[in-house]
Amino acid sequence: MPNLQAAILQALRSVQDPDLKRDLVSLGMIDQLLIKDHTISFTIILTTPACPLQEILKQECIQAIRTQVTTDFNIAITTTAKVTTGHATASVLLPHVKNIIAIASGKGGVGKSTLTTHLALALVNYGVKVGILDADIFGPSIPTMWGCRGVRPPILEQEGKKYIQPIERYHVKLMSIGFLAEEAVVWRGPMASAALKQLLKETKWGPLDYLLIDLPPGTGDIPLTLVQTVAVTGVVVVTTPQKVALIDAVKAIAMFTKAHIKLPILGLVENMSYFLPTTAQNTIHYIFGKEGGKQLAQQKAIPFLGQIPLLPAICQQGDDGISAVDTLPIFDTIAQKVAQQISIQNAKATF
Amino acid sequence: MPNLQAAILQALRSVQDPDLKRDLVSLGMIDQLLIKDHTISFTIILTTPACPLQEILKQECIQAIRTQVTTDFNIAITTTAKVTTGHATASVLLPHVKNIIAIASGKGGVGKSTLTTHLALALVNYGVKVGILDADIFGPSIPTMWGCRGVRPPILEQEGKKYIQPIERYHVKLMSIGFLAEEAVVWRGPMASAALKQLLKETKWGPLDYLLIDLPPGTGDIPLTLVQTVAVTGVVVVTTPQKVALIDAVKAIAMFTKAHIKLPILGLVENMSYFLPTTAQNTIHYIFGKEGGKQLAQQKAIPFLGQIPLLPAICQQGDDGISAVDTLPIFDTIAQKVAQQISIQNAKATF
Repeated sequence: MPNLQAAILQALRSVQDPDLKRDLVSLGMIDQLLIKDHTISFTIILTTPACPLQEILKQECIQAIRTQVTTDFNIAITTTAKVTTGHATASVLLPHVKNIIAIASGKGGVGKSTLTTHLALALVNYGVKVGILDADIFGPSIPTMWGCRGVRPPILEQEGKKYIQPIERYHVKLMSIGFLAEEAVVWRGPMASAALKQLLKETKWGPLDYLLIDLPPGTGDIPLTLVQTVAVTGVVVVTTPQKVALIDAVKAIAMFTKAHIKLPILGLVENMSYFLPTTAQNTIHYIFGKEGGKQLAQQKAIPFLGQIPLLPAICQQGDDGISAVDTLPIFDTIAQKVAQQISIQNAKATF
Repeated sequence: MPNLQAAILQALRSVQDPDLKRDLVSLGMIDQLLIKDHTISFTIILTTPACPLQEILKQECIQAIRTQVTTDFNIAITTTAKVTTGHATASVLLPHVKNIIAIASGKGGVGKSTLTTHLALALVNYGVKVGILDADIFGPSIPTMWGCRGVRPPILEQEGKKYIQPIERYHVKLMSIGFLAEEAVVWRGPMASAALKQLLKETKWGPLDYLLIDLPPGTGDIPLTLVQTVAVTGVVVVTTPQKVALIDAVKAIAMFTKAHIKLPILGLVENMSYFLPTTAQNTIHYIFGKEGGKQLAQQKAIPFLGQIPLLPAICQQGDDGISAVDTLPIFDTIAQKVAQQISIQNAKATF
């Protein structure tokens, strides 16, 4: 039924991906269109399995076919995902890494490593390949949070070159500056930069959909050099609602977005937003102030990715080492939004 | 009555300063001894007006005279204080500054600036001269906390040399890296070091009993260079009870105490220790874990200076700008303990 098939594709051209602002057919998102036994079936290839829009897209496809083509057929839509990338693979330092997400903060201690950790867990639950590079030379927390302090990553040799093998936990590949130097050590600036470059160049990540970099806090030259060394897709900024943290978040945003750096800010996460005692669920305590991060995101017109409450469990998991089941719905929502923003950036880079 | 006077002094030689481990007479702490109208009066010159032991010392003096000399006289003891110093004034960069206290943390965001601020307020309440140098290039919070963001310190010229005049608030002299560069700025390492050295050398502090330096967090070369540039009397380490913060606090302690640096750790402060809702005063929430800092102080055999609860008021004051009346008893206790440790260090340096 070539005419019907053409008509269906024509109808699907009226369905836009609301993020990418183009129709599904010209985006190449429609695959395996089959008409058989009174059933129209096809696959939507999403730009990320963590796509928050998949149900909406499905419904819009069904509606387009029903209104523009036929109501006589069943419609069976499956979704699959092929995580997009914004870079030409040959030209970059990490060609097998599709997307690099820098997790940044102006102020230290606002929850960068906690967010990185839970974001990785949430993403890997969608079946994608995720890595974490803990670049926080001032206090690498990833080894503690993933229960692998003191672990030494193996050194591989391949075709005469040496590689560092990341540590794998719960399907997430981990590399940390803390694996190299866990003892009390004074990082002279150039030493730290050299160690980070080594980690970037010599870690054998293999193919990754998302590499999360837990940056050092602040607006020093180390976080800046780092995001310039690799082709970072975008930056997620973490802050607490306090003014003293927001001021530093503003500085970080300014640093990453200034003319000669111009990194997209994927969004802002507000951590330690409030405390809700388990014993008095109706009483919400805004210990560090109310909605400071949310307001900052609005002011700066950057996506607001969510509020993470102060939860003793989050802290406990971070101290004891998380496990794969330590997921909270808020981190899933944030992961979806981050993946969505990545897809948008990639679409911008590609078209 | 020379015999009586000699007998009293002899008796007072049996009273030891429990911190300095020597008797009050040979420490030169007894002054203006007078016997008149059936009253023995003298002054104890304390090593700091924030001395937590003054009542004990008074009582022991009275008891020594009563048991060893006479019960026939009234005894009137006044106290005064002359803050001690451990250095020979001529040889150091800041000769008019008696004591330099570095406030350090391994991890950022644990409350260094909050502690520095409240410590200064508590000390100045004892009538001593206090200054704050905010050296936290990664996020100077002092201007916000003292309500003087955007203020530019005046430049003075004296005998052909230029000086920066500190900003004074509530009798505390303030200088901050944030006064020099408040905008979004990438601090290349050497630039930051140069700016800090300028602040140290060119700030016209005048005479100070205590200069508190709010260090940058972490174990990088900047905090280290800083404490080596000036003759720091000792270091106060701040941490939260979380393991991820304690690990970094351990690193900081190791850095400051290692062989070629050997700075005394005056003590450890545990911040964000617990949350006590005003609505449910009987329910204590250990959001970041329980007593991690206290235990660390015990393990490392360093003085434990106190636990600061999570209080929305502390955060609010920091964001809105504190005022002189924003004092909490816990900060007074910590100030006393810090001043006490300073006196102990100075006594060690002098004898």
